[in-house]
Amino acid sequence: MNSAVVLLSGGLDSATTLAIAAADGFECYALSFDYGQRHRRELTAAAEIARAAGVRRHVTLKLDLRQFGGSALTADIPVPKARSSQEMAEEVPVTYVPARNTIFLSCALGWAEVLKAKAIFIGVNAVDYSGYPDCRPEFIAAFENLAGLATKAGVVEHQRIQIRAPLIQMRKDEIIATGMRLGVDYSKTISCYDPPDDHHSCGRCDACKLRLAAFAKAGIEDPIAYVS
Amino acid sequence: MNSAVVLLSGGLDSATTLAIAAADGFECYALSFDYGQRHRRELTAAAEIARAAGVRRHVTLKLDLRQFGGSALTADIPVPKARSSQEMAEEVPVTYVPARNTIFLSCALGWAEVLKAKAIFIGVNAVDYSGYPDCRPEFIAAFENLAGLATKAGVVEHQRIQIRAPLIQMRKDEIIATGMRLGVDYSKTISCYDPPDDHHSCGRCDACKLRLAAFAKAGIEDPIAYVS
Repeated sequence: MNSAVVLLSGGLDSATTLAIAAADGFECYALSFDYGQRHRRELTAAAEIARAAGVRRHVTLKLDLRQFGGSALTADIPVPKARSSQEMAEEVPVTYVPARNTIFLSCALGWAEVLKAKAIFIGVNAVDYSGYPDCRPEFIAAFENLAGLATKAGVVEHQRIQIRAPLIQMRKDEIIATGMRLGVDYSKTISCYDPPDDHHSCGRCDACKLRLAAFAKAGIEDPIAYVS
Repeated sequence: MNSAVVLLSGGLDSATTLAIAAADGFECYALSFDYGQRHRRELTAAAEIARAAGVRRHVTLKLDLRQFGGSALTADIPVPKARSSQEMAEEVPVTYVPARNTIFLSCALGWAEVLKAKAIFIGVNAVDYSGYPDCRPEFIAAFENLAGLATKAGVVEHQRIQIRAPLIQMRKDEIIATGMRLGVDYSKTISCYDPPDDHHSCGRCDACKLRLAAFAKAGIEDPIAYVS
């Protein structure tokens, strides 16, 4: 059985990605990051999703990106609320964490090489996203190329580690429909960048707005609780 | 004044690289990793080197790669001793840490973007090295390409962050000669993968053997202490 490392944030995209990896027949190793994120509550969600999916192992790596700052998620910068779709489409917001997906994929690559895994799964999405540069197909392709040059697996053993981003060309409502078919329990997921407490999402940050719009479009009620 | 992030392990290559970055006119930010390495003593060396070089800031990121294991530096695998030059040239040794330079460069990229730095310096070397795939020019070029696609700096602001590896084509004795010209105090550096105590190096691991041979070739006495 081939194994795969799956990046798991606790949000709906990564929960769906994990279900896809399992459905594709991979033995899954889930990797989460305690990186100093404001929405640290997502780590509890990630642990529950990993358990429900029956992953072989779930590792949460600590890596304090607050030492660098530079993002509303890792520094004392307010999370923007109630931005319009046009604003979301036009600019990279302050919730962008510099090089985050590069850092996450690099760590996943290290683990994948130790495990002799065939693939790394990442739930990035280039359609309904927030304008992040590291969610685009050209970024994923460049990382896969790098992975082949960076590792003993790639250079000596000619075992390329694939970077699979199965959601990259899907709309968020399609992602939800896919997850529902695969039995993902979205009540365990959280997307909010700025959760007001342990049980609610804000409903107004970009992540909440994209999520709510997608559930509405999919014709499914979002099972999590919002304050507004 | 342009700024640069310099990866600083505490070894002679990164100490020399830091001196080169400063001599090139960069304001330097040093980045070290407490990654669970066996030779953790190098972090004390890195702090002393950073202080002596007058860097603007020195950050040591914690990132426990022992959770992945797979290397003699991060798992309970013995460090090979007294390997021949031919053995060193022919195989990737068990001291290879999967994806380590990719992980280090990714974190440096995040910090560089926050700082609006123009460059990242890394002391990799493709001549007198231990057969690591992530020390080769094609790896560095692929990472620089990735950095342009991964970041807001690269994609939106068209500010490419250079990856500079000034030692990559130098022999280790040339590196030492360069560092001596730039005033590097090699008594502060440590290269040993498996230090027997706080004051000595083993003299028999690949890193010690390469270092000792290079000092001998440069005609300079290695100022650090060895047990053998």
